[in-house]
Amino acid sequence: MSGMADAFFRLIGTHGVARCGELTTPHGIVRTPAFMPVGTQATVKGIRPEEVRACGTDIVLGNTYHLMLRPGAERIAALGGLHRFMNWPYPILTDSGGFQVMSLAQLRKVAPSGVTFRSHLDGALVELTPERAIEIQGLLGADIAMQLDECTKLPASRADLDRAMRLSLAWAERSKLAFAGATTGGALFGIVQGGDDTRLRRESAQALVDFGFDGYAIGGLAVGEPQDTMLRVVEETTALLPAGKPRYLMGVGTPEDILEAVARGVDMFDCVMPTRNGRHGVAFTRYGPVNLKNARHADDPRPLDPEAGDRGYSRAYLHHLVKANEMLGAILLSQANICYYQSLMQDIRAAIAAGEFEDFRRGTLEDWSQGDIAPMTPLRPIPARAERAK
Amino acid sequence: MSGMADAFFRLIGTHGVARCGELTTPHGIVRTPAFMPVGTQATVKGIRPEEVRACGTDIVLGNTYHLMLRPGAERIAALGGLHRFMNWPYPILTDSGGFQVMSLAQLRKVAPSGVTFRSHLDGALVELTPERAIEIQGLLGADIAMQLDECTKLPASRADLDRAMRLSLAWAERSKLAFAGATTGGALFGIVQGGDDTRLRRESAQALVDFGFDGYAIGGLAVGEPQDTMLRVVEETTALLPAGKPRYLMGVGTPEDILEAVARGVDMFDCVMPTRNGRHGVAFTRYGPVNLKNARHADDPRPLDPEAGDRGYSRAYLHHLVKANEMLGAILLSQANICYYQSLMQDIRAAIAAGEFEDFRRGTLEDWSQGDIAPMTPLRPIPARAERAK
Repeated sequence: MSGMADAFFRLIGTHGVARCGELTTPHGIVRTPAFMPVGTQATVKGIRPEEVRACGTDIVLGNTYHLMLRPGAERIAALGGLHRFMNWPYPILTDSGGFQVMSLAQLRKVAPSGVTFRSHLDGALVELTPERAIEIQGLLGADIAMQLDECTKLPASRADLDRAMRLSLAWAERSKLAFAGATTGGALFGIVQGGDDTRLRRESAQALVDFGFDGYAIGGLAVGEPQDTMLRVVEETTALLPAGKPRYLMGVGTPEDILEAVARGVDMFDCVMPTRNGRHGVAFTRYGPVNLKNARHADDPRPLDPEAGDRGYSRAYLHHLVKANEMLGAILLSQANICYYQSLMQDIRAAIAAGEFEDFRRGTLEDWSQGDIAPMTPLRPIPARAERAK
Repeated sequence: MSGMADAFFRLIGTHGVARCGELTTPHGIVRTPAFMPVGTQATVKGIRPEEVRACGTDIVLGNTYHLMLRPGAERIAALGGLHRFMNWPYPILTDSGGFQVMSLAQLRKVAPSGVTFRSHLDGALVELTPERAIEIQGLLGADIAMQLDECTKLPASRADLDRAMRLSLAWAERSKLAFAGATTGGALFGIVQGGDDTRLRRESAQALVDFGFDGYAIGGLAVGEPQDTMLRVVEETTALLPAGKPRYLMGVGTPEDILEAVARGVDMFDCVMPTRNGRHGVAFTRYGPVNLKNARHADDPRPLDPEAGDRGYSRAYLHHLVKANEMLGAILLSQANICYYQSLMQDIRAAIAAGEFEDFRRGTLEDWSQGDIAPMTPLRPIPARAERAK
């Protein structure tokens, strides 16, 4: 245990390897399996916090890398912390910045002490150590903090994966020490690395469990590998993690990825997909993604999904907004997508609790594989959501 | 009278030349003096319709020019009309397209029959006649339609102003005939032209009043002339218009412009200023415009205006969103500005009804001229809004 009492995670039900439960954080309860919308720069892009909440969101993710560079962690702390700054009085998980340093920063140099890099905003030289990453997350006021790690893109050589995994383990230990010295009242997660290598993943997971964290993330996936590789690593890794602690698959993913990872014992997810796709005119629905740019929607009076998230906007109107490059198109689709994800998570939790997750997973994937409903044809009858979860 | 019974406009109170009243339209009441947010492409940029409404908006403006080109008036009609298309079940005024043809279209050619131009979207050749402008506004389902007119930028020669004014008068008569043949149930406004020339304005206004319209717009202002010229023309023109019909000053303006025009007998306004400024990081407050890009806001925990529209967002947060180019910055500032404008209109109406408009106008302009409140200094005591209107 790092910072939290044993009451942090409560397992409510299981169905096979899938689990549902809840996290208790300083800013409230997080129902699991949970999807965390990404609020990179202290905002879930295009959506007001009260709307993010209204979609059924328990927790959002904040990005340490972006926030430390602008507006600055000390500034946010002086303004009362990230919750108050962004008007989100509910749980927040912050990443450690490691992933973004690798993907966004220039001239980065990884050393045992930490990583130095130049800011992508103004070129300023910045150092991020495991201790500083914990300090920043404390200044932000994170309910759940992450250790600094080094994430390796796949494919990668075993030597590279081995080195990055061992460095991440050393940083995990230092993160835990630094966290124990702070008084944030939040939780700290370790991050399993090791790429697609079964032995490295096992070594990483076991060492982290020996250190003892409030939860365990699986990092270094969804970085270019095929889905079956990702799911194999997830399955092998969750089997090594203690049942009483939450498991977080970082940066994942599509609705299919989420269903398959839940089936392999994952409790938490984050992904930019719903908002990024929304900004690009793509909506998620029960029947798969719908590209609103497509001219076939121009005269379609029906809503995106007659069941979910119908705010009275027709596909024809959404098509018009997207074609006309109107902000409201991005706003409505981003929110519809967050709502779709959260309604999927709610259905997943209900199905696990009811012992029907396997049927639910199969039926949902089948609906998805059908592709979008044909334009202007009658919808097939939709079983009520409560019915489907039974 | 064109299409409406005499009950269209009801005068409730006057204070000097300033008036308050209400319009009764097929989609509800419009309290005057009224500010109409501009929904050019069937959306008030960046704001959901329910939020536009929640700010106290009775009526929005739709642009015939933009909507006829994309998505098309016939398409909107087939989808149930503009109200349903954009999810705004309240009054809509549509302009006639004349102003945008002059300012946006390429290769335009004005003839007595109408205007031909190339679409700014795809270069297609389009003809707009007075009759087609009325037909389009009927397809959109406008509560208030405008005649096609020719708007001349200032400064302009008297010959140009004379020619455009006479053409607009001829089009006014044809618009009225076409409108009488349609069955929209809405109202039709004529548009006074004549630039900054007192005699031309008088001739235009008198001829329009002789034709008889449901309301009278003052066009061809806010097109480059000094404010005192604009106000002189407004004052001279409203004096020629019947007291029992509403007067609409097109495309105006700043809060100061609105106060001064109300003092000269204007009832209706539209302007892109609140949303356009919001997208560019500028907020309107009781103490004048505030540029949120300015670094002095970076650490300011106070809301934009402690009295109006406080949604719990600090100036520091708004500054961060604007600097980080986050959509939420444009969203929050656009809405704050629409709310500021509508709260100003509400105060104006209350002040006129209470016979205190002159004091209110002077006090509001004085507050505005002080510029934004100094950062991090205590606010001076704010009299309650009800108090100020007394």
